[in-house]
This record gives sequence, structure tokens and C-alpha cells, in this order.
Amino acid sequence: MTDLVTFGESMLRFSPPDQDRLERVDQLDVHVAGAESNVAVAANRLGLDATWLSKLPDSSLGRRVIGELGTHGVDVAVVRDDDHRMGTYYVEFGGRPRGTDVIYDRADSAVTTAETAELDTDLVADADLFHTTGITPALSDTLLSTTADLLELARDAGTTTVFDVNYRSKLWPPAEACETLEALFPHVDVLMVAERDARDVLDRAGDAESLARGLDADFGFEVVLVTRGGEGSLALADGDVHEQGVFEADDHDTVGTGDAFIGGFLARHHDDGSVPESLAYGAATASLKRTVPGDIAVVTPEEVESVLAEGEGSGISR
Amino acid sequence: MTDLVTFGESMLRFSPPDQDRLERVDQLDVHVAGAESNVAVAANRLGLDATWLSKLPDSSLGRRVIGELGTHGVDVAVVRDDDHRMGTYYVEFGGRPRGTDVIYDRADSAVTTAETAELDTDLVADADLFHTTGITPALSDTLLSTTADLLELARDAGTTTVFDVNYRSKLWPPAEACETLEALFPHVDVLMVAERDARDVLDRAGDAESLARGLDADFGFEVVLVTRGGEGSLALADGDVHEQGVFEADDHDTVGTGDAFIGGFLARHHDDGSVPESLAYGAATASLKRTVPGDIAVVTPEEVESVLAEGEGSGISR
Amino acid sequence: MTDLVTFGESMLRFSPPDQDRLERVDQLDVHVAGAESNVAVAANRLGLDATWLSKLPDSSLGRRVIGELGTHGVDVAVVRDDDHRMGTYYVEFGGRPRGTDVIYDRADSAVTTAETAELDTDLVADADLFHTTGITPALSDTLLSTTADLLELARDAGTTTVFDVNYRSKLWPPAEACETLEALFPHVDVLMVAERDARDVLDRAGDAESLARGLDADFGFEVVLVTRGGEGSLALADGDVHEQGVFEADDHDTVGTGDAFIGGFLARHHDDGSVPESLAYGAATASLKRTVPGDIAVVTPEEVESVLAEGEGSGISR
Amino acid sequence: MTDLVTFGESMLRFSPPDQDRLERVDQLDVHVAGAESNVAVAANRLGLDATWLSKLPDSSLGRRVIGELGTHGVDVAVVRDDDHRMGTYYVEFGGRPRGTDVIYDRADSAVTTAETAELDTDLVADADLFHTTGITPALSDTLLSTTADLLELARDAGTTTVFDVNYRSKLWPPAEACETLEALFPHVDVLMVAERDARDVLDRAGDAESLARGLDADFGFEVVLVTRGGEGSLALADGDVHEQGVFEADDHDTVGTGDAFIGGFLARHHDDGSVPESLAYGAATASLKRTVPGDIAVVTPEEVESVLAEGEGSGISR
Amino acid sequence: MTDLVTFGESMLRFSPPDQDRLERVDQLDVHVAGAESNVAVAANRLGLDATWLSKLPDSSLGRRVIGELGTHGVDVAVVRDDDHRMGTYYVEFGGRPRGTDVIYDRADSAVTTAETAELDTDLVADADLFHTTGITPALSDTLLSTTADLLELARDAGTTTVFDVNYRSKLWPPAEACETLEALFPHVDVLMVAERDARDVLDRAGDAESLARGLDADFGFEVVLVTRGGEGSLALADGDVHEQGVFEADDHDTVGTGDAFIGGFLARHHDDGSVPESLAYGAATASLKRTVPGDIAVVTPEEVESVLAEGEGSGISR
Amino acid sequence: MTDLVTFGESMLRFSPPDQDRLERVDQLDVHVAGAESNVAVAANRLGLDATWLSKLPDSSLGRRVIGELGTHGVDVAVVRDDDHRMGTYYVEFGGRPRGTDVIYDRADSAVTTAETAELDTDLVADADLFHTTGITPALSDTLLSTTADLLELARDAGTTTVFDVNYRSKLWPPAEACETLEALFPHVDVLMVAERDARDVLDRAGDAESLARGLDADFGFEVVLVTRGGEGSLALADGDVHEQGVFEADDHDTVGTGDAFIGGFLARHHDDGSVPESLAYGAATASLKRTVPGDIAVVTPEEVESVLAEGEGSGISR
Repeated sequence: MTDLVTFGESMLRFSPPDQDRLERVDQLDVHVAGAESNVAVAANRLGLDATWLSKLPDSSLGRRVIGELGTHGVDVAVVRDDDHRMGTYYVEFGGRPRGTDVIYDRADSAVTTAETAELDTDLVADADLFHTTGITPALSDTLLSTTADLLELARDAGTTTVFDVNYRSKLWPPAEACETLEALFPHVDVLMVAERDARDVLDRAGDAESLARGLDADFGFEVVLVTRGGEGSLALADGDVHEQGVFEADDHDTVGTGDAFIGGFLARHHDDGSVPESLAYGAATASLKRTVPGDIAVVTPEEVESVLAEGEGSGISR
Repeated sequence: MTDLVTFGESMLRFSPPDQDRLERVDQLDVHVAGAESNVAVAANRLGLDATWLSKLPDSSLGRRVIGELGTHGVDVAVVRDDDHRMGTYYVEFGGRPRGTDVIYDRADSAVTTAETAELDTDLVADADLFHTTGITPALSDTLLSTTADLLELARDAGTTTVFDVNYRSKLWPPAEACETLEALFPHVDVLMVAERDARDVLDRAGDAESLARGLDADFGFEVVLVTRGGEGSLALADGDVHEQGVFEADDHDTVGTGDAFIGGFLARHHDDGSVPESLAYGAATASLKRTVPGDIAVVTPEEVESVLAEGEGSGISR
Repeated sequence: MTDLVTFGESMLRFSPPDQDRLERVDQLDVHVAGAESNVAVAANRLGLDATWLSKLPDSSLGRRVIGELGTHGVDVAVVRDDDHRMGTYYVEFGGRPRGTDVIYDRADSAVTTAETAELDTDLVADADLFHTTGITPALSDTLLSTTADLLELARDAGTTTVFDVNYRSKLWPPAEACETLEALFPHVDVLMVAERDARDVLDRAGDAESLARGLDADFGFEVVLVTRGGEGSLALADGDVHEQGVFEADDHDTVGTGDAFIGGFLARHHDDGSVPESLAYGAATASLKRTVPGDIAVVTPEEVESVLAEGEGSGISR
Repeated sequence: MTDLVTFGESMLRFSPPDQDRLERVDQLDVHVAGAESNVAVAANRLGLDATWLSKLPDSSLGRRVIGELGTHGVDVAVVRDDDHRMGTYYVEFGGRPRGTDVIYDRADSAVTTAETAELDTDLVADADLFHTTGITPALSDTLLSTTADLLELARDAGTTTVFDVNYRSKLWPPAEACETLEALFPHVDVLMVAERDARDVLDRAGDAESLARGLDADFGFEVVLVTRGGEGSLALADGDVHEQGVFEADDHDTVGTGDAFIGGFLARHHDDGSVPESLAYGAATASLKRTVPGDIAVVTPEEVESVLAEGEGSGISR
Repeated sequence: MTDLVTFGESMLRFSPPDQDRLERVDQLDVHVAGAESNVAVAANRLGLDATWLSKLPDSSLGRRVIGELGTHGVDVAVVRDDDHRMGTYYVEFGGRPRGTDVIYDRADSAVTTAETAELDTDLVADADLFHTTGITPALSDTLLSTTADLLELARDAGTTTVFDVNYRSKLWPPAEACETLEALFPHVDVLMVAERDARDVLDRAGDAESLARGLDADFGFEVVLVTRGGEGSLALADGDVHEQGVFEADDHDTVGTGDAFIGGFLARHHDDGSVPESLAYGAATASLKRTVPGDIAVVTPEEVESVLAEGEGSGISR
Repeated sequence: MTDLVTFGESMLRFSPPDQDRLERVDQLDVHVAGAESNVAVAANRLGLDATWLSKLPDSSLGRRVIGELGTHGVDVAVVRDDDHRMGTYYVEFGGRPRGTDVIYDRADSAVTTAETAELDTDLVADADLFHTTGITPALSDTLLSTTADLLELARDAGTTTVFDVNYRSKLWPPAEACETLEALFPHVDVLMVAERDARDVLDRAGDAESLARGLDADFGFEVVLVTRGGEGSLALADGDVHEQGVFEADDHDTVGTGDAFIGGFLARHHDDGSVPESLAYGAATASLKRTVPGDIAVVTPEEVESVLAEGEGSGISR
């Protein structure tokens, strides 16, 4: 039996080395990236037994993804598909004022055709936790339907459902996202949402606490997690609000910070951590992630605990 | 006025360095690749004034292609498109017995939507030569129609039309290719075809000369070029057959050899070279190409002439 | 007809990767660099039709420069020369307190022999703008004479002349530079000068505005641009002074900042931008340049406008 | 239940890129290498369910090995150890006449302390196949004893034991190896030995067949496999001798060829392949391995079958 | 005759490029590293005639070290050994909060067997300065004995002895270090110690000045240097205390900062610099080191003097 | 006292990695190269005590050369010069039929101004051997005069003079070379000449032996070495002719083969090797060189002896 099943798309991420420009690049760094597989890796590395559920092309590109997850010990329950493509995305890191530019090339990827019937739904039913994000239902009508099925099925089986809003403006407009997501929320136990998305997508107002309380009032979540970028995060659980700051980091690659956060939170919470302990654990995991190239939180429990103990690495240990 | 207009798709080509495997690669070499842009580059570098006609996404990826062609002095007449993707392909060089593995990811690329009306057809009408390949009509129904329009339009304007069969089994089955291509042949002046494709796709029999004579008999070409891999090439023109061997090369990257060949042939032929002279020029260009990383023939007229004079580079010149 | 012609030297720039030291380097990054070609690229990318006028060795090294400019769409009008060398320079980026070390190796380069008679002067006469810098006349007596000829010729033809003082202490002493440059100023319409050079080379005193007004009083420029490093820039035009701050940037490679600034300024000014608008446009271009490896401002109009709109890239767009 | 358990050491392999020399290298390529883990990877990729049994330091270096095996889907049953080091080796590829130079730095590695009692011996007892090599008992007295225990235990449990002589002159002298190995042979079902080692280490004479028959006569193996380098291989089973040639390969990295061979042989043989079929399958796997950087056979069943069908990759498939 | 002899271990240092993680690295940067050889290089580059005394394996790995020192002009007096290994260490640079992780793999290296009798002790006796650190006696009992011999021998010969406490917690516990080092101090003329080590290892209290005065009172040193990280350093000589701040640096690689400091101090002091001048020279050398990849201070006297004159590199010199 | 002094120019060599083209390269590999320093390195590595005499710019580029020679243990006796440049050359390896393209950029390098009076001529007088090549007098009139002085001075002091004709067509025409070199030959004891140069430059006829005998008859050398590319080499000494074949090599970089040959020859001959032994030693050194990137023979005496013993490396030693 697995502790955590995550469901979504994983892509090949292509990025020019050394802050160079996509428009003249001769080499690209390749990473494996996807919100739900990122969460599976972070949680698995931090102690959960995690499985990633998805669909991939039956090619060396699909194997690139499977191999990466295997490196981190994540089990994969993947349908192989001869007819659809591997999703990819390009990211160019420009620093200020260029910013970070993302070009998605994920349309018609294999996972967009994943139907409930072809997936190993027993895994979801048998797991303690099921996680997906707002990216998945945005990718295709099929995936919207499958996402709804899996959330419902998990809920029915007593599996705790975790949903990260994770709004992507390049995938759908806010109003459509809001309507779709709110239809899924009744099947969600743990909701994670960026403060900005709560305002701009879910169309709510107030400070972070009000946003959490409002969502909870409307949908009755077990936990609502609100992430606030550099200002930290907040959890509403059992009517209590817990706040958590960020741990300072020398940013190397900030993509995947939120996935590391929820991965860390779930790992600690599943291991009987209290909500504040789990929040802190998530925040420490997130800060470590920011130092690691790629979307994936290549971190260890010892490192997370060291951040919690000291706040930051104290020079060189030798 | 331009000497040569070529029309087709150009892609980003991704290949693992150092004979490594796609399924575990952390870096990819990036090249710009496309049969018709390859021909434009080779011909332009060897003296023609060439323009590449196409459609590209309006993104840094599209600019990567335009920049590459600009490096080689090729003019681009490109429609920019916000809604479609950049075609890509992956190639893994394995040597014997692994072979070379190609994964196309070109479906729904911008160029597949290129309609005649949006292209600068005056360029085609004003050119001396118009070149495209059997890849272009295979990419979409729209492109098949556009290809037919451009060939017809070129013919009507007195522009010599050059067509390279260039069969790709990953794009369409032989029978469909044969039917489609034979419908285009009446508008073609110079036909280039691999001996193998003449047999397996165009469904003809006999030795290389018979193949050429048979095609000529059926469609009445000005020139028929038959390429025969390591065994050289053959041209049928004005009823005469000319044969040409290959120049030995230390192969570094053999993709694009045929494009270099036709680019060299056209450059010399346009410059009043006889058919045998042009064949030799094409063969020398092709052999140089095989030493250069990427699909593009980064060669100079001096180098081609040196191959023709000596057969091969005679050690170090210092 | 071209909008802008620039005239000067372009070099190969060699720099050790990753802050390493020239004295032990096993690999060098190669960029194409030269104040006037940098300006041509920046202006061309931002909307002008630019041509670079120069002289280069007839070798693969000369082609490296031509290819780079072609990548960015700049036309080249270059005399090829079999007898002289390619100019190069080495730059080592050390950070504080090592600083940035430059070793020029440009003596006797092909361009130092460029005489007026061998250049395509019609291009200059037909252009709207002609740009060169104080580096060019410092390179050889021949180039001093040619520079003077071209400025005069441009003025006579009604082409607006733009001159960036760009003092290089490794090329000549301040007094010689001052005397030479002041003899050219009567043919200059738009003068750009660093505040420091106005003091140390042109031997003037006062604050930036006084420097601009003093130069204007003596030579009667259309516009005087004074750049002030981290403190921004200032333009004097029609008796009015306009000031402009800098946009914050995460510096990756600051070489070429001034060239990006004037390239951006000219692009906007030629497109009917007011002096303050053009100053801001130049400053935004310059800040983007600082994030890009190499001397060349690989930027787009959209990026410049985004900086003007927001001041800086607001995180990740996805 | 697992099909195959292999037991031995895995090391980090450091090699200079691009045929450079260790004595001046500034970068090293890192691979994971070890005869028994190589076999586990090859077999697992080709269809067996394989587990690698070993002991590793509890460090990021140990995780490097575990992650690599996870990439290829191999399960690891590894004791973690805080007190011993990670074994490494350096290899410099020189080509002729420099040859390939190996420097082992594996003394006192964690695995040298692996005692039977701390290992998960149930895995061995429950497996169909158990594999180790003559390297393992050469590494320490502890390992010799553990190897003997595991072979005996496997035999008693009905697990087929596979032993590759794999003599390493840098680890022990031939006479000591011979005495030690012959004491293990009574517990071995499938013996693999290089013709050269059969002569120089096991001190036998005659042609390959005689060597096989002699060994069989003395120890009563189920199968004796004799590898003969470029001359192919031979199997003696049930009194019959089967010979197999090699498939031509463009060698990129020949380390690990023997491990790929036995991994391929076992995968096919376990899947009810006859001895000749399994020999051919092993030979095809080995030839593919030679094209792949590193010690590990990153190959697929489809590729092996393609080699068997065609002998070699037939150009580019596109 | 040599000015300075240093005695200790030099290792190969392996570090992942670009802040990546050891546990998934495919390439490692290689540097040569060792406190005493670092000091020899810094001092030699800054004007002393330095020799490094040690023992190395007789292999390409040993030659890697000798070649590196030769690059910087340091003489080596090294015993070659066929039987022991090359010491190595791994360092992963994580930034905050990951910190910098060091894994030593130096046990049983050749130098740990270095006995006084096999070393060229005349070099020590004839030198002006002899330098070693607290690392050397921690590596083996043999090295403790040899270190004691060399310090005594140097003192008897009138060679000034320099000892840097350089405590490494991964090598020995504080109490053992304290007892061992205090037994060596009577033979030491110049003592260097980090303020933290004076407290935690030498078990002393008070501010930096008190620590220096206390050590001087107990052992009667010529000079006591106390380094205080970002707060600078302090020297006690002839009863006077001199303080020195740090020069700001853009840190690229901070390993080896202390060795650069003492190397710079000794170079200036030997050249008749006063203690305050030498302190400043050491601090400038240390700040430059922090900008250079690797452990070694690849700096020049001109650069050190420029830091002393200006505090930091003033932009680009061109 | 030194065994061997060599005199000539050393350059930085820039080459595109991976067979790429100079005209589009973004990175260049850097090596140190020069016939006479190559010989010093080869000879020093093989047992001679060698010193390189030259003049270099006083810059980080000059230090790059000095550091490289120090890596190999060669002493340098170099005049530093603030006013002249570092010589460089570019080499592009194309394979057949592209060949290897060399672009020299060595005019006006510091060494071209080296006058006898500024060099440490005592080193030459005290050495056993003095070596230079026909490149040195071709570089400038000053160097021609200095070369003549040094040869004469060496002869007068009893130092054996070694001269390698080493004709470079890019430096001077054959007739000028012939006249100049023949004027130097009376001061030469050991002459080395390529068979091709003996014909085309020294304008002689006949087979290799006749060429040697003819040169000896005219100038009375102690030894005449004639190199014949792939056909081996020949020595005429004391009236006897000795022939030597080549050892097969997997060519990686063939530049510097001749320098490795003479370096090996001199090392063995100085160590009392007979002429045939020394020829074989030179040939083995040359074959090893061809496997090493760069111009320099990074080889060991053990490797040379292994080639002599076996002809080639026999697989992997492990």
C-alpha cells in the first residue's frame, strides 16, 4: 500500500544554461518537471511511500521521466501510449528586469487523453493521501472528467484528498478556472492556494486569514493552506490559524517551490506532525528547494531538520 | 530579386551530446533543421541569393530559427503566428548497431497552417528557382494544398521548380505518399529522389538509370536526380545519364547530406555549371556536410572546390 | 535605404567561463563585440533598419562576426581583406575586489586599414543616422582620417551624425583623445559622453548639466547625452535638460551597456519618440542588456516596453 | 518475489572526458559501475525483476548509486553504513597505443565489511537466480565468507546460482584467485569465464570447448559460458556446445560488455529462451552496450531484438 | 635555498558544477587542495620561493597534484609511494540554507605514512620559514610524530615555524586536538588560530585580544594571529595588538580563504613588511581568493596591491 | 645545469570542440603550443632537465604559457615584455575531406623582438643540448639574427645543436627559407627534416636515404633525421642509416607529433641510447602524442616503454 498517490502531467523542461537566451541557445539543460510528480518526489524523499499516476508516450522521452522518478524512489503507475506526444516546456531565467519566461509546449500530450478507466484506480482508493492540482483539469476535457472521478473515488474510499489551486494563466482564463475548480472543491479535504490566486482567480477579498476562512466557510475543508510568497504561509485547521514565515535562501532555481512546500507539509503531517510542525517542515523544504537546479526538491530529511534547527546552514562543515 | 526560394518547415533539433541516450540526458545540443531551409543555407553559402518561405511561432523559439538562417545570410519571408507551436525533433546518434533514432514532435506546428494567401507569393514568382520537398505536403492538408499552389504558381511564372521526394515513413504510408506526390510531379522541373524511395514509395523497379528514365517518361522532367547513398548519384538530363561517385568523409553527423547535395547542385547549375559539374559540386558539398555537426552544411565555395581538386583535405595546412 | 549606418571595429571577445582566471583557462567563451556593431544590433532589434560598415579579414574568423550580425538581422557592408588580422580582446570577470580585466589584442586588425575610398559611402549618405565612437579614430591614423571623412560626408548629405566619446585609456592618452575628438565634434549632431570622460578626457568641470551645456555651447550639438553610470543619464536638447534614472538589474555581463543605451535611444527617437521617451527607452534597453551574456543587447521591443511599464520582470509568467 | 538477486560492490567511476589525461584533468565524468549492479540493470531492463544486494556509505555518494539503480528500475536491498567509504575507480580511455588505464580506489569500502547476518538473505532464497562474480570474494575476507554463505544458501533454497569469474589482476594473484574460486564452484550452477581467465587463472589448457568441458567435468555445472572477446562466446549445456559470434559495434565505451552479455543471457534464459537463443540475446545486448557511455547497458528489449533481426542499425529511422 | 617549506597533505577536490547535488552529479570539477600546499602557492605567487614537502602515490593522480603546484611555480619535494592512495574530498556548494557539505575521503592516503627519515629534512633546516597546520598531525600517528620532528628540527636550525590550528571536527574531537596541539606549541614561532577554535578547541575564553594574549602568555609565540571570519583579524606581536578588517568580496568559492590569508601575511612579512602591513596584505589576498574557483589563491602581487590601494576593483579597466 | 635548452615561440592555441567550425563557435578549447616548448616538455617528461628560453608578454596570457610549462616541470627563462602581444593560433579539426585548418595570429608577438643581449645565454652555453626550429628565424629579422647567435654560441661552448627544419608555408616562401636555413646549417649538429621539406624547401631529390646523405655531404651533420609521415623515419649517423616504422595510433590530435618524436629521441639519446634505440623511443613517443588532446606530449617513460614492448596498449589493465 502506498501513502500518497499524485496524479498529473510531467514534462521535460528545457532551459538555457547560464542565464542565456532561448533565441540563440546551442545547448539546453533538461529537467523533469510537473507539479504532481514534484510533490511525489519531495514527499517520497521525506519519508512517504509515494506513487505517481499518469500517462506517458512509450518512447525514450517517456522513459526519461520514469527514470527520473525512479532515481528518487517514487513508484510510477503509468499508462504508456504510442500515439501522443511528450509534453515539454521551455524556461529562460533572466533575472531582473528580464524576469523568467516560460513557453509551454504541452498541448496534446499523452496525459491529456488519460481516462479514468485506463488508470489503476485501486492505488488511489488504497492510499492514505491523493494529491492533484488545478493544472490537471485545465489540460483537457478528458482530464477534467478524470480528475473529478479520482477525487470523488478517493473521497469515497476514505483517502484524504489534497488539491493545490496552482493557477496557470497560460492554460485558462480566471473565470473558467474558478467555475471548474469550485465544482471540484466539495471533494477536497486539504486545499492549498496562493493568496494571489485566491483573489484573482477565486475572486475573493480580504487578508490571507479572511481568504482561508471564507473558503472554509463555503466548502468545509479539513485544512486550508494559503501561501504568500516571501511573506510565508498560513494554515487554517479546526478553526485555528497558524502562520509560518519563510527561511531565507540563496535562490538558484525557484520553480517548484510550492510543490516542495506541500510535499514537505504532507510528509510531516502524515507522520503525525501537528499542523504548525507540518507548516514549518514544508517551509524548510521549500527554502532548500530554491537552492537546487531544476523543479524537483532534491533534499533529505536531515537537511530539512537542520534548517528547522538552525534557520540556515552555518558555513562549512568539515 | 532572389535566385532561390525554398518552402517548408524548419524545426529545432535536440540531440544528446557524445552518443549518450535520450532517456537519461541532462543536456541537449540544439540545432536548426529542416530540409528546405537546409537547402537554402547550402545554396546561399555557395553563391545563390536564397530566401526561405515559411511560418513560425512568434516566440523566442521562432527567432532561434530566423537567427540561424540570418547567420548564413539567408533571407526569411516568414509569417509569424501566435497560436501554434514550434516543431521539434529529437535525434539520438548511436553508431552501429544502435543506429540513429529520430522522434518527431512536429504535429500542429505553425507551418502546418500556412495558406497560400498569407505567403509572399511574389517572391516565388520572381525567383529563378523554387524548391520544396515531399515532407511539406505530408505535414497537413493545408500544406498539401499550399505546396500544390506554389508549384503551379512558380511554373506559371517561369520559375524552375525543384522537388525532392524525401520520403518520411513516420509521416505517411508509401501508397498515400505516392499518390499525392505523383499529383504534384506535373508541376516539377527538377526531381530528386533516393533510389530506395523510387522503389519503395513510387513503386518502380529496375536499376537507378531505369528508375530515372521511367520517371522521366511518365512526367517529363527537365532533370531527374537519383541519389544512391554510398554508391553515389546519377542525373538524367536531355536524355543523357551522368553518374557521380561519393567523396570519402569522416562522418560526424550525416543528417542533411541530401539537402547539402541538392543545395550544391543548384548553386553550381544556376551559375551555368553543366549537369556533370553540378553533380560533382553537389557530391563534394554533401561530403563536407558529413563532417559538420548539425543538419546544416556550414561550408564555403573554397572548400567545395578544394574537395573537387584533391578529393580530400591533404593533412594540415600551416 | 537603411535607417542607421554604424562604422567601427568588431572583435572576437574571449572570456573564461564561471569567473575563472585567464592565466589557467582551458576553455574560453567567444562573443562578437564592438561598440558600433553593438549599437547596430540593439537598434536593429528594436525596429531600425541597420547596417554595419567595416573591414574584416577574409577568414572563418571574419565570418564569425558577419554571421553574428546576421543572426540579429543587421546588414553588413564589409570590405574583406586577406592581409590583416582579426581584432580580439580578452575579458576576465572577477567580481569585487578583483574587478574586470580587459586585454586588447586589436593592433593591426583589418579595420585599421579601412580607407574612405574602399567603403560604400553611399550607404552613409543615404541613411537617416550615422553612428561611430571615439574608439574608431583611436585605432589608426587611417581610421582617424576615414572617420572624419564619413562624418563630414554624412553631414553634407543630411544624415544625422551620432558620436559616442567612449574613451579607452588603453588606446590613447586623454590629451590626444581630446584634441582629436574636438576636431571631429563640428561634424557631430548627437553627442554621447560619460560624465567621467567629459571631465577627465574633455577636461571640463561642473555637474552633468553644466558639462552638457558647456559642450553644447562650444560645438552646437542637436542633442548631448551624458551617461552617469548608476546615477542615470541626462539629455540636453533644444536648451532643455531631461534626466533619466536607471532600471535595477541583476547584472550578468555589464559590457556593452552604453551601446545598448544609445541603440535604444536612437531606435525610439527615430520612431518619433520625444527626447525623454527615448532616454527612458535607452535606459530600459541598457538594463536588459546587463542580464545577457556577451556585449550584445539580445532584447526585444516587447521586453523594453515591459521594463518601461513595470520597472522589472514580475516573477514568472506561466 | 524477485527474479534475480545480484550481490557485489558498486563504485563511482571517474573518467576524463574526450580522451584527456587524468594527470591534468579539470572535470571528470561520473558513472555508477559494478559488475553485479551492471548485471542487475541489464537484466531488469530486459524483463527480469532484479534486486541488488550490497552495502553502501550513508551519504550523498551512496545515494548516487541508489539513485542510478532506481533510474533503471532495479530494487536495492542495501545496508547503510556511517563508518566506511564509497569505493571509486578512475578510468582513462587512451585509444591505441595508450590503452585504457584503470586506477582502483576501492579498499575499505563499505561493502568490504558486509556480513551475511546483516543482509536480507530471504531475498536470495526467494529469488529464481542469484548472481555474483569473482570480484566480490577478492575484496575482503569478510566478503569471501559472505559470498560463500550466499552461494550455499541460494543453492539450498533452490535458487540457481550464476558466477562470473571476472578476474582482476589488481585485486589478487592468479593462484590465490584459483584456489578461492574453485572452493566456491561446487555451489555454482551457471559459470561464466573468459577464455583467457580459464587459462591464466584457472590454469587450464585447450581450446574454448575443451576449457568448458574440463570445467564441467570437474565441477558439474548446469551451464558453462566461455567468452572469447572479439571471437564470440560459447556455451556448454547438457553436454552440447553452442557457439555465438559477436555483433559488430562502433565502440564508444567497452567497459561492462561482459556484464551486459550475462545480463542479456539471463533475461532471455529466464524467459524460457533456449541456450542458443539466450547466447544470441546476450551477444546482442553486449554489442549495444559498447555504444553507450558508462559501464551500464542502457538498452531496451526492442533494440536487442532489432540487433538480432538485422545485425545492425540500418541507418536513420525517420 | 628556499624561503618557505610547507608540509602536509594535498588532495583532489571534487565538486559538482553550478550548485548541483553530489547525489545526482554526472560531472565533477576537479581542483587540487590542501592547506599547506595552498599556503605554498599563495606565498610563492606573492614573491616567496616556496617548496611543498609531502608524500604522494606514484600515479597519474599524484602527478595531477605535482603538475598543479608546478603551474604556480612551487617546488615539490615529494616522496612517491606505490602502495597508498590519493586523498580526495568532495564538496557541494549549496548556498543558504543548504550550506556547504564536505565529505572527506582521505584515510590511508600516502602522506599518512610519511616518516621523518624519508623526507628531505635539509630543506626544512635551510628554509627561512616552515609552515604546517593542525590538520597534518590529525591524519595519522605517523604524521603526528613526523610533524613534531619537523617543528623541532626547524626550530633547532633557526627556521621560523608557522602553525595554523585549522581544526577539523571530522578528523578528531576537540579535547584530543587540544592536547596534541598544545604539545606542539612550544616549537611554534607564529601561531594562527580562528577565534572560534581558540574557544572551542583550545578551550579558552575572552575576546579575540584576550585569546591572543592568553596563548602568548602560555607558550611565548613571536606572533599570534587570530582570524575572526567576517570581522577581520588581529595580530599580537611584541606585546602590541594590531587589528585588520576584511575587504569586501563577491564570494565565488570561499574554501582556502584562511590559507590565502597566511600565505599573503608570510609573503609580506618575509619581505620586511611590518606586522600591520602584513596583516593587511594577508587580508587583501584572502579577499581576492574568495573570487577564484578552487582552494588555491590564483592572485598576483599587483592585484593584492590594487586591493590595498583601492579597497576594491574599480569597474572595468580598458 | 640543464640538459636541454630550447628556444622559440609558444602560442595560445584556440580550437573549436567536437569538430565544430570556427565561423560559428561559442567556445574554444585553449592549449599552449610551440614547437620548441613542445620539445622541452616531451624531453623533460622523459627524463631530461629542460629549460625553455623565450620572451612573453607580461600578462595573464603570458602566465598561461609559463604555468603550462611548469605543470610539466620545464624551467622557463623568459624575458617579460609590456609592449608586445601574445602569439595565438586557431586550429579547426575537420576530418576528411575538410582537413585541418590553421590560422596563425602570431605577427608582432613578444618573442619576435627577442635580442641575444637580453636572453640568458649562459644557459645555452652550459647545456648539453640546444634545440630550435626553422620556425624561429622565420618569425622576424631580429629572431633570425638571435637564432644564428645562439647556434653559434652553443657550438662554441660545446653544446650540441639540434635543428628541426619544420617548414611553415604560411610564414615564408620555400626559396627564402632554403637560403636562410642553409646559412644556419654549418652551426647545426643534429638536423631533423621532413622528407617533403627536404624536397620542396631544401630543393633536393632522391629517396629518404639519398636526401640524408646529400645533406650530410654538404653540411657535415652528426646526425640527420628524416621523418616520413606514416612511413616512419630514418637516421643517418656515422655513415650508417637506421630505419624506424611508426607505431599504430588512434589519432585524436596529431599536431605536435614531430615535436614529440624529437623530444623522445633526444631524451633517449642523451641517456646513452644508441641511434636506433633513440629512433624507436622517438617513434613511440610520437604515437602516444597522437592520442592526447593538444600539441603537448603528455606521456610518461613507462608508457613509452610499454609501447616499445608491446606495440600497443593491450586492452584494459585492471
